Parts: sequence; structure tokens; C-alpha cells
Amino acid sequence: MSNTPPLFVPGHDSNLVEDVKARVRDVQDFPKPGVLFKDVTPVLADPHLFGRVVNAMAAPFRGRHIDKVVGVEARGFLLGAPIALALHAGFAPARKPGKLPYKTVTERYSLEYGDDGLQLHEDAVGRGDRVLIVDDLLATGGTAEATARLVTKLGGEVVGFSVLISLDFLPGRERLGREKVCALLSY
Amino acid sequence: MSNTPPLFVPGHDSNLVEDVKARVRDVQDFPKPGVLFKDVTPVLADPHLFGRVVNAMAAPFRGRHIDKVVGVEARGFLLGAPIALALHAGFAPARKPGKLPYKTVTERYSLEYGDDGLQLHEDAVGRGDRVLIVDDLLATGGTAEATARLVTKLGGEVVGFSVLISLDFLPGRERLGREKVCALLSY
Repeated sequence: MSNTPPLFVPGHDSNLVEDVKARVRDVQDFPKPGVLFKDVTPVLADPHLFGRVVNAMAAPFRGRHIDKVVGVEARGFLLGAPIALALHAGFAPARKPGKLPYKTVTERYSLEYGDDGLQLHEDAVGRGDRVLIVDDLLATGGTAEATARLVTKLGGEVVGFSVLISLDFLPGRERLGREKVCALLSY
Repeated sequence: MSNTPPLFVPGHDSNLVEDVKARVRDVQDFPKPGVLFKDVTPVLADPHLFGRVVNAMAAPFRGRHIDKVVGVEARGFLLGAPIALALHAGFAPARKPGKLPYKTVTERYSLEYGDDGLQLHEDAVGRGDRVLIVDDLLATGGTAEATARLVTKLGGEVVGFSVLISLDFLPGRERLGREKVCALLSY
């Protein structure tokens, strides 16, 4: 089992970071005044760029025996589902309380805009499963950390986190463990 | 070098319907008493089956020049994003009001459990774009029809709807136009 820090290999797609940065849209005062929101929908709207992003976000975890990709509601679904397919792994959604129909486990977390919970189906992750957690953006790390606790609660092992954007002026990356986080872009 | 994720193997897949039916989980009384919910998460949890489903849902629209796939929040994201990649189309999320950060268009609809709205970013679909709408389940067709109205409002053309499950005892399929709806399973 390898604990090597996962790294992107920019040599394979050297302009990707610039191409993505050129398309991520800054939206002022969303979801509340004073917040600068990073909108990734223009990246998804470009089929070639979307494919390159999925490839690059999956790349550090190829050959690392990922059993399950957990995507965090809701933008994490958009990247997590294709990344699961790219890694030949199963996909499980981490959702807000009350959204999953079957038996669940729950973790609470606090975040910049308040307090919330996340759930996984209790059969979403099996004992010993190697799990990759995917989201579009890593900020304070509250949701990602809660997702990791859900995975651990079900007996899974969190191999890493793959995010499109990391806001490195916030403590998310440190909180999750630097060596576990792969981010395509950092601000 | 290829930048397209090698996710999808075209071809005939004759046992797919039975294999999916065996994995869709019935959950009684969700989201409210008296409703039998069709839970597709066990399908997504199986990487091989998930890939086959994406392939089959994309297949009827291959070669039909789809510019954009619109996935309906939130389970429509899980199927819509990989189907967009499979069709080399862009992806756009249709979301509940207040979730999209940029300028939006809105449509209201009534559904079995009440009344709600859906939004698209105003640049999500271009004038003349050929659009495929994707969701996990077609019931009354309220959300799918509202999504189609959003696409039309932006000048796009709705080529069709691809759903994993159609509840044919409800009027969704008739409402959208029989010839426009592709469903992998019907109940």
C-alpha cells in the first residue's frame, strides 16, 4: 500500500491549469455579501475541457485500488460520477439530511455559512473499502472532513481527496492533511 | 495523447435491463407515506453496471449532434455528467432556485409532493443548441417539462429526454411526447 503524496502530472496536459483558470467564473457576493464564489459551470459547459479535468482529477488515483468514489452534494456529483467511471470504482453520494431514501449514517459539521449535516447510505461504503472523496471546491474543509468521518464510520479507508479548486488562504488543505489532497487549481 | 476519458464501450448489452432491475431498490414511504421510492444508488455503486447504464442512456443520442446535456438536480447530475462526456457534449445543471450563482432563468412547476422551481444559468444553453435532458426517474414529468421550457426560453432545441426509469402508470411520458423519451426501465 502506497502512501506516496499524490501529484498531478502536468506534463500530460500542460495547459490544463491555465485553461481551467480562464473559465472559472468569479461571482461576487454569492451565496452571501462579501463572498467571492468560484463558479465552475463554464468548465463543465466545454465538453473537451470537462473531459480533461475529469482525467486530471482521476490521474493521481489510478492504480491505487479505489473501490468507491464519494461525491459531496451537489457539485461534487458532477465531477465525482465521471471520476468514479474513469477509475472503474463505484460511486456513492454524500447528501444533506433527509435526501437519501435508505438507512443512513450522519455527521454534523460547521462551515463558513452556518451549520449542517451530511449522510451516507449505510451500505455506501464497505468495511475495508478504499475511498476517494471528490468535490468541486475545498474551502474550510468542513464538508470534506465530515464526509471522511462518514467513510471511516462505515469501516472505509479515505485514500485521498480530489478537488478542482483549493482556496489555500483557508485551512481546508491543512485540516485534511496536505498529502491527502489533490487540487487542480489553488488560489 | 487522448484527453477523452476512456469510460464507455459501445455495443449491444442485452441483459442490462434485468441487471439494473435487480439492483434498483424499492424504499417504502419515501419521501412521504404511501410513496414507493425507486433508489438507484445500488446501480451507481457497481462500477461496471454504472458504466453500462451510462452507455445505454447515451446510445440513442449518439450521432444526433447533442451540444448540451442538461442534468436535473440532483440525481440527474450523477447520470447527466457522464452522459455528456460520452456524447462529447457540454453539461449544464438545472438547479433549485438560489443554487446557481450567476444570472438565471426560472420556471415554476407543480409536482406530486408540492410546487417548486428550476433554474438554468442564462448562458447554459446557446441559441440553436441541441439539448438532451437527463434525469434518473420520470414520474409526472413536471420537472422534465419545466427543464424543457428553460431550454426553449434560452433558444435551445430539446432533442430528447434520457431517463433511467419511467413510471409508465404516471403521465410523464405522454406529457413530454412519447417519441422524445428514452427510458432504460419502465414500471
